Amino acid sequence: MPVYLDHNATAPVRPEALAAMTAALNQVGNASSVHRYGRDARRRVEDAREAVAGLIGVRPGDLVFTSGGTEANNTALRGHGQARTLVSAGEHEAVLQARADAETIELTPAGTVDLDALDAALAADRRPALVSVMLANNETGAINPVDRVVEIARKHGARVHCDAVQAPGKIAVDAQALGVDLLTVSGHKLGGPQGAGALAVLDGRPLTPLVTGGGQERKQRAGTENVPAIAGFGAAAAAAQADLDRIAGLAAWRDRLEAQARALCPQVQIHGAPAPRLPNTSCLGLPGVRAETQVMALDLAGVAVSSGAACSSGKVHASHVLRAMGVAEADAESAIRVSLGWTSAAADVDAFLDAWARLVRKHGLAADAA
Amino acid sequence: MPVYLDHNATAPVRPEALAAMTAALNQVGNASSVHRYGRDARRRVEDAREAVAGLIGVRPGDLVFTSGGTEANNTALRGHGQARTLVSAGEHEAVLQARADAETIELTPAGTVDLDALDAALAADRRPALVSVMLANNETGAINPVDRVVEIARKHGARVHCDAVQAPGKIAVDAQALGVDLLTVSGHKLGGPQGAGALAVLDGRPLTPLVTGGGQERKQRAGTENVPAIAGFGAAAAAAQADLDRIAGLAAWRDRLEAQARALCPQVQIHGAPAPRLPNTSCLGLPGVRAETQVMALDLAGVAVSSGAACSSGKVHASHVLRAMGVAEADAESAIRVSLGWTSAAADVDAFLDAWARLVRKHGLAADAA
Repeated sequence: MPVYLDHNATAPVRPEALAAMTAALNQVGNASSVHRYGRDARRRVEDAREAVAGLIGVRPGDLVFTSGGTEANNTALRGHGQARTLVSAGEHEAVLQARADAETIELTPAGTVDLDALDAALAADRRPALVSVMLANNETGAINPVDRVVEIARKHGARVHCDAVQAPGKIAVDAQALGVDLLTVSGHKLGGPQGAGALAVLDGRPLTPLVTGGGQERKQRAGTENVPAIAGFGAAAAAAQADLDRIAGLAAWRDRLEAQARALCPQVQIHGAPAPRLPNTSCLGLPGVRAETQVMALDLAGVAVSSGAACSSGKVHASHVLRAMGVAEADAESAIRVSLGWTSAAADVDAFLDAWARLVRKHGLAADAA
Repeated sequence: MPVYLDHNATAPVRPEALAAMTAALNQVGNASSVHRYGRDARRRVEDAREAVAGLIGVRPGDLVFTSGGTEANNTALRGHGQARTLVSAGEHEAVLQARADAETIELTPAGTVDLDALDAALAADRRPALVSVMLANNETGAINPVDRVVEIARKHGARVHCDAVQAPGKIAVDAQALGVDLLTVSGHKLGGPQGAGALAVLDGRPLTPLVTGGGQERKQRAGTENVPAIAGFGAAAAAAQADLDRIAGLAAWRDRLEAQARALCPQVQIHGAPAPRLPNTSCLGLPGVRAETQVMALDLAGVAVSSGAACSSGKVHASHVLRAMGVAEADAESAIRVSLGWTSAAADVDAFLDAWARLVRKHGLAADAA
């Protein structure tokens, strides 16, 4: 049985989500239709809205369903109406590529946003700004001090967007407590289906919509509601919330994985480790062995991991996140991401370690080979 | 058993599509991942690309998958790079609301684009233009002479986009034969799931992407591919293609529906009837009875139809399509849309006629009541 350790790319669909989707797929209905089929579809959408809102600590009415995290990030970044846009250098491409005029705030070597640099950038130009800082990094799992980001932004009157795609279902997320104005979530990272995400608009200030047409989602996002995917997202959100304590326990397995990797090969690099991290993510550098080589060897051994973000696969350059952390180009090119999740078992960690040990030995990098 | 006659809003999911989706949902995979799970997901996406391309007569490589027809239309209308944008007055809101600077070409009373007006508008301003004309109207079923539109556009050097959302699976569509440069399709109108559509780019000229981030869909549409929905779209496209002859036969039922309605109530209006129409669609006006009243009465009687486009439901104003055809405001406000589809049976037409006859009699509009 192959072992799936790429939950940050996409997570297996939870049975609760599959059941909700199957029910929706077996019952025709456009959620904007007024007849009984339409009302039934509408009910599925609104039930999901409550479940997703509950997972991230917002009001159901704050949520705008989108086709996924990328669209939600694009919508926030392009529609916020502020004169300036500041993004951290570790953001996902869906934020970085959303607009050409964004200013970049550097990262600390641990992989979190440099708060002093943010403060200085906001102080240097008094025009109204939006600050976009992710909650947890997809490649390293590093968790940003978003409450501090909000504190600094408030001092300067800036609006705050948080790309939280990687966090809900892995750690508790309370958007209201964080104090952000806008927050992005995605269904398929937590056991929902691909094709559903949401943008929470906590400050009630409408955005310029990205997708326009019919007046769906209170005129914030046009297009026929993706009822099955939204229903699956809702069911997965509820299941993920109930599963949070168990998921927190993944940190122990992740720590064992890293400790045993380091024992086998002391020169292994664990990027982002000094920062608070998601419990499921490990970004492991094996100096001198290209990430692509590692990913392919592990895949042949039946272990699925990735080199950086899945959506940039095929790229030959090193991770922009690791480079922003000051990691040398060659080291960044040798980093793989191992991400556990709701289907993971202790045996998966053993399977990874076995396959990885063979790789390490093959390249003459094991401590006992010295 | 309630009767569903609102296929133009959304069609029941075909069993082939449900099977393809279930298979994809039960197998984790991000189509951009390089490991075996990713390659499996990629294969599902590329198989679907071939099936959808086959249905509309384009090359698989022409297709950019999107979250649906609205996003595809937005992408075409905003990303085409021409100085002018001309749209017919009967276009869907996803085209009409895509940009504020679009110029509108009027409709004929039959509900198709006025070709002389298009020719004149293109002649009046020689800047490069995009012309967007839908293949078949969602409210009336009227089919535009898109080949003539292309001929006129070519004379003036204009690029042509065609919103074909309502056509594939109802009539044969051959985008290459039509000669258009850009064509929009949607999965859920033909028995695929909500959440997947595509924009075909036949002229190979890249568009400015609407959704940006990871470089998916050859950098034309960012965001994790919605593998289950795309797989379902592909399976539905293949099934719809095989079902085209049977669907053509719906025209006989639609004609019977209209003939019996007219016999019962001679003042009934059949909007778009003088134009070539989709075989499944009837836009019926019952003068003096508001569409909302009719839709609710029919719903109570177990028959689901709509007043105009589902995505504008809740609106109180009359259809912009009917108004553009020169239909009086009061008449436009009394028009309902009946749309048959792949699940329809002859008994559905009888059920509609029974319920509609009760409505007509209740309002004293039956011929035999005179």
